Amino acid sequence: MGTELLLGQIANTNAQFLSQKLADIGVGVYFHTVVGDNMERLLQVIRLAASRSDLVIFTGGLGPTQDDLTKESVAQHVGVGLETNLEAMKRIEDFFLQRGIVMTENNRKQALVLAGSHVFSNDFGMAPGMAIRHDSSTFVLLPGPPSELYPMVERHVMPYLIGLLPQKQVFHSHVLRFYGIGESALEEHLLDLIEKQDNPTIAPYAKEFEVTLRITARASSTEEGEALILPVEKEIRDRVGQYVYGMGEDSSLHDVLVTELGQRGETIACAESCTGGTLASLITSVSGSSAVFGGGIVCYTNEVKHQVLGVPEEVLHTVGAISEETAKLLAENVRVKLGTTYGVSVTGVAGPDPSEGKPVGLVYVGIAAEGKPTVVKELRLAGRRHAIVGRAAKFALFYALQMQKER
Amino acid sequence: MGTELLLGQIANTNAQFLSQKLADIGVGVYFHTVVGDNMERLLQVIRLAASRSDLVIFTGGLGPTQDDLTKESVAQHVGVGLETNLEAMKRIEDFFLQRGIVMTENNRKQALVLAGSHVFSNDFGMAPGMAIRHDSSTFVLLPGPPSELYPMVERHVMPYLIGLLPQKQVFHSHVLRFYGIGESALEEHLLDLIEKQDNPTIAPYAKEFEVTLRITARASSTEEGEALILPVEKEIRDRVGQYVYGMGEDSSLHDVLVTELGQRGETIACAESCTGGTLASLITSVSGSSAVFGGGIVCYTNEVKHQVLGVPEEVLHTVGAISEETAKLLAENVRVKLGTTYGVSVTGVAGPDPSEGKPVGLVYVGIAAEGKPTVVKELRLAGRRHAIVGRAAKFALFYALQMQKER
Repeated sequence: MGTELLLGQIANTNAQFLSQKLADIGVGVYFHTVVGDNMERLLQVIRLAASRSDLVIFTGGLGPTQDDLTKESVAQHVGVGLETNLEAMKRIEDFFLQRGIVMTENNRKQALVLAGSHVFSNDFGMAPGMAIRHDSSTFVLLPGPPSELYPMVERHVMPYLIGLLPQKQVFHSHVLRFYGIGESALEEHLLDLIEKQDNPTIAPYAKEFEVTLRITARASSTEEGEALILPVEKEIRDRVGQYVYGMGEDSSLHDVLVTELGQRGETIACAESCTGGTLASLITSVSGSSAVFGGGIVCYTNEVKHQVLGVPEEVLHTVGAISEETAKLLAENVRVKLGTTYGVSVTGVAGPDPSEGKPVGLVYVGIAAEGKPTVVKELRLAGRRHAIVGRAAKFALFYALQMQKER
Repeated sequence: MGTELLLGQIANTNAQFLSQKLADIGVGVYFHTVVGDNMERLLQVIRLAASRSDLVIFTGGLGPTQDDLTKESVAQHVGVGLETNLEAMKRIEDFFLQRGIVMTENNRKQALVLAGSHVFSNDFGMAPGMAIRHDSSTFVLLPGPPSELYPMVERHVMPYLIGLLPQKQVFHSHVLRFYGIGESALEEHLLDLIEKQDNPTIAPYAKEFEVTLRITARASSTEEGEALILPVEKEIRDRVGQYVYGMGEDSSLHDVLVTELGQRGETIACAESCTGGTLASLITSVSGSSAVFGGGIVCYTNEVKHQVLGVPEEVLHTVGAISEETAKLLAENVRVKLGTTYGVSVTGVAGPDPSEGKPVGLVYVGIAAEGKPTVVKELRLAGRRHAIVGRAAKFALFYALQMQKER
């Protein structure tokens, strides 16, 4: 996998994921290294890493092909052989059996593990992970595809690593989720707290068009960590609490909205023009969203806006599709048509070119709710097509959440 | 900037960008290293990098704060001092003047450059970039923020690097895009070619649920490169040509489908159950998709399938929503309702739990076309919710493309 990274075909999101996980348990990450599928350079990097770190984690290079060399090079460095892991072999055979495909011989290579290593089973793929200790270092070898890596780390690798930690030290975090405030503006409001931070630490960061703030305490117990965090969190909420919409790493706007709707037995539907299905896909990415999501209409064309969602042709011809009036009608009509508590609409110019003579980044979000006047928000978003669509969808979720709280 | 990467707060997209740029001009990238804002570890990394590479590029650490140490550590390694660059100083002063903000003293630090270095002006920020040669290595120091880095590289750094290349050498690539075949099966078919590869090189890789193969030739001209690639590409197409749907790094299935539809003046609509808007969002992510996309209905619930898309309640109650029959009706009815050439439907179980007693990963894709019998494909997809949704949407695009070719 290193070669793909070195050619710039993909970004190193695995390093980011693993660094986050290690930060959570207080393991300091000092270096990331990317190296290509070349035995000599791999061995050179392994020697260097072992000389400067207690823990060396590899991702990628466990696959069936010729240029998958991670196991072979670690085996050579450690001085052990490779052996077939029977559980992994069975899983690989079953994979092909279930799909009725003939298994090619090179797939057997994926069941090989370092002799004497601790094996992590791969619940979503074929190549297992493994850990082996040598001299004063622990080497952990993990698969490259994120869909296999992430669950393996969460389920099997983190418990193993926590077991290696020398003393019971707890890293306890609160994650605050913000919307409607930029990362630098947030930092500005909290500058004195960030500058004097020690324990707990305060780290704001931007992710998927949202801003997140992590407060992490180092303590001997969760209770002690909690006690360290609470006064700092209170101070932060006193200053910027109006922008906090939720808590926790896995609670994006769509997660919070789906949860809140579910708790109140309410439902939502959406009519999307410029976001083209992104808003619906965010909502439906949440497991259990089927209980609250009444459906979505992607009304990219004026015909659909008119025929399916009942926006009068006169409105489309006078004020246009990108207008407060159209946003209002789309939100109201999709709500009535799909029989939900809320109706959300997004119409605007995602770019790259202006539309109806309106500038790129101009977006209207409409929120209709049963028994409440419909609200329409005008946004002026910066960035390229992808970013405008992403931000517009997030704003729609945020306004829906606001409307819900007011109701 | 290194610290944010090591804490996992951001992914290393700068390394990806620079690697792509270097690959374009045939500079082989052998290592990426991320190191924190620590003088000792920075110097250690600089020594190592200089010992193994002709070119060492840094991004980040040129800013005004205490922990911006890149210039200081390279200066120490090279043995030169820092001097104020007057053009950069003027730009910084102007920046504050224009915004009417008082300049804090630490901003002057940004105008410092390595004595005797070649300076790259920063057209979108304050800290200039620079290059300096020492022993047999060239060190290039660039700002971290992508909005400053990217234009500086495109405008100033690439011409400088091309000037350093010993002889005019061209790297010419063809990128083949595959669907319906896995990465390992593809490699199995091409194993002998991959094993004996030299010039051109052949590299398959998986990205966003698709498989891509890059054939790259090293030559003295594009024409010579093309001549080296063609026979290899022909051999590959003779073996696995039926899975090739397009060419080029930026031509995912949705790009190709939108282009093909546009050229033929055809249109498409979709009815999505388990993909929940992802298929529509892929199609609408392509600029210009408004000319071919008739709209989408996200029919997560049986009510919408019945009321908006006319699937008889009897069908939903007997064979169920996750069935060949429902997929067929959804595809046909969304096509008629939105008046398009093609109608595509996806219904299945994205998980985590089974639905209607049907297993996670079972998905039906329906493709209806004007004047053709509707086709329904049954898929058994592996992975978590996110991967099942992503793969199902890609398969739907692929089958739509197939149907279009047959028509």
